Amino acid sequence: MIMGVDGYLGWPLAMHLTERGHDVSGLDNFSRRSNVEEMGSQSATPIPPMGKRLRIYEKATGKRLRFYEGDLTETDFTDGVIEKEKPDCIVHLGEIPSAPYSMIDVRHCNHTQINNIIGTNNILFAVKKHAPKCHLLKLGTMGEYGTPNIDIPEGFFEVEYRGRKDTLPFPRQPGSWYHLSKVHDSHNIMFACKIWGMRSTDIMQGVVHGVVTDEMVNDHLLTRFDFDEAFGTALNRFCAQAVIGHELTPYGRGGQTRGYIALRDSVECMTLAAENPPKEGEYRVFNQFDETYSVNELADHVVKVAGEFGLEGRIWSVENPRVEREEHYYNPDREKLLTLGFKPRFDLDSELRLTIPKLMQYRDRIEEKKSCIMPKIRWKG
Amino acid sequence: MIMGVDGYLGWPLAMHLTERGHDVSGLDNFSRRSNVEEMGSQSATPIPPMGKRLRIYEKATGKRLRFYEGDLTETDFTDGVIEKEKPDCIVHLGEIPSAPYSMIDVRHCNHTQINNIIGTNNILFAVKKHAPKCHLLKLGTMGEYGTPNIDIPEGFFEVEYRGRKDTLPFPRQPGSWYHLSKVHDSHNIMFACKIWGMRSTDIMQGVVHGVVTDEMVNDHLLTRFDFDEAFGTALNRFCAQAVIGHELTPYGRGGQTRGYIALRDSVECMTLAAENPPKEGEYRVFNQFDETYSVNELADHVVKVAGEFGLEGRIWSVENPRVEREEHYYNPDREKLLTLGFKPRFDLDSELRLTIPKLMQYRDRIEEKKSCIMPKIRWKG
Repeated sequence: MIMGVDGYLGWPLAMHLTERGHDVSGLDNFSRRSNVEEMGSQSATPIPPMGKRLRIYEKATGKRLRFYEGDLTETDFTDGVIEKEKPDCIVHLGEIPSAPYSMIDVRHCNHTQINNIIGTNNILFAVKKHAPKCHLLKLGTMGEYGTPNIDIPEGFFEVEYRGRKDTLPFPRQPGSWYHLSKVHDSHNIMFACKIWGMRSTDIMQGVVHGVVTDEMVNDHLLTRFDFDEAFGTALNRFCAQAVIGHELTPYGRGGQTRGYIALRDSVECMTLAAENPPKEGEYRVFNQFDETYSVNELADHVVKVAGEFGLEGRIWSVENPRVEREEHYYNPDREKLLTLGFKPRFDLDSELRLTIPKLMQYRDRIEEKKSCIMPKIRWKG
Repeated sequence: MIMGVDGYLGWPLAMHLTERGHDVSGLDNFSRRSNVEEMGSQSATPIPPMGKRLRIYEKATGKRLRFYEGDLTETDFTDGVIEKEKPDCIVHLGEIPSAPYSMIDVRHCNHTQINNIIGTNNILFAVKKHAPKCHLLKLGTMGEYGTPNIDIPEGFFEVEYRGRKDTLPFPRQPGSWYHLSKVHDSHNIMFACKIWGMRSTDIMQGVVHGVVTDEMVNDHLLTRFDFDEAFGTALNRFCAQAVIGHELTPYGRGGQTRGYIALRDSVECMTLAAENPPKEGEYRVFNQFDETYSVNELADHVVKVAGEFGLEGRIWSVENPRVEREEHYYNPDREKLLTLGFKPRFDLDSELRLTIPKLMQYRDRIEEKKSCIMPKIRWKG
């Protein structure tokens, strides 16, 4: 069961799991569509309404997805669908995923935190009641860790302190109200595993890039691609800017380094994790990314690949609207998924070679909303 | 300005600060009263309605407290009172403080987390807007740390990991949905200090015991004393049980060790912290307790002191309704308040010698609600 099946990751994952023979259901409240609309923007790729999307998928592949429309923060709704489905695995992508959106004002901060925390709590309680052996695969973010001056392990680390040792959760230093909501989720889920014997994989995911997967056999089956300042990542915004001939605009000095993973590799990782559940009572954390890049390096790669398609990209740094370190140490682990058999297939350039021409098809849709790309939301308010 | 001024700590602190010449206002939504009522219980000490309470205080001392009735989760209300008061310091005690209450079911879990997180967020945003130099003194709990197998520093520790060093937030391993809400608050507040330059003291407080302070010049000015399974601490329940001749009922093996502090010492600590604010942008953490005891030791002390008042106490262990370690290492620091000048005045026995005879005056009110003492709420559901 995929929470947030209408979203950027949910839709490709649903098709991939169905293709692999899993019986897949999904749920969404379409908040990503309405939140992007609130930002005045739209997906670069046109996304049909869910009913049509499902019919097109069925027609193209002969496979069906069961869909529920509703809001995870409504306790009775969440309880009801989990009671009905009694899933073996839930992939929980049903959260508001934007740092800038959460930083707009107090209402967006509270809305993001309530939406994410309460949705997850409702899932935890419903799973305990109706499907206690269900594996909750929850999407967190590498941003939970922030940028400490030491290596970042996968969730836990062994500490020696004043002559004694313990294995403890790795401290979290998130950088927005949104990232904080994911940290709150992680603490809540860890506790549910401890007291109820639930099983969960908490995925600290890097930034996902790309827009096409193997199951997208026609363009009506594409996933969304956001490029506005709130729901578009730095990489997405650079691609969109290159396509419409706008300068690429890294924030500040551009040394901010993060983990990245191609969409098709992300789908593969989630599939691997779902098909290899943890044992009862186990709370495990996977760092899910493939490569690390600084923002400046991202921009350079986009300029290079855009050039291969005849687009001339230029870079123009803008003042950083965020409060974050612009030069820092960054060395996170990513062993657990590799041990489970993950073989990364697509590096940044190869994924860009698929993304940029696809976006060029939809240049008009980006052009139409180009005023949404540049940052107006500031961390200092 | 005291958020939660009608509560167990808020009321004595308000009187103490007023007595010291501070201009004190306070706010409450009376949720402690209604939540204890929901548990079917009442305060052992009779508590007049707020209007009467304030009149009695004014009559007895000639001093006034400004009071606002309202709910911190209502963004406009919180914004409005902070705009009006523009306080130099906020002592934020306005949260639901019960672990068992939060463990009743999904609704009580969500209600506790929303109430505590959103109330605090609303304060953070209103302070930023209307009183950016205000010192936010926030009450957390020693329970945020859990019981790690290493010493517990005050909020942060220096870690050496794989040959590199950093100073990081100490990992939190809370033991209930309530304790989790306090951890979420701590992360949110730390972030606000970082991005907005706010100043905050986050107090990890031990269990507070006692019911009388110097300012309670007559019994109408007493603070509340809860003894029900949700809002009464182990120590309170033991005192109440001794007074009505019920066995004292430690949970499980009784080796659970926590920090404790007398009510009058807690009020003194909060006053010290309020009168010595951190600097702009500083987020500091104080561990606020005086002594550590295991649950079995608490019960022994209550039996001993109750005996001095002619009460015969017996101990009868009951099955532990919680999921927690019953034997563990526990060695938290508590240096920062001592450095600031805190001199603990009241140990457990001396405070019990004041509490037990005071409760004996109100034996009938405990007897009337004695069915609320024994645990029915279970961590495993």
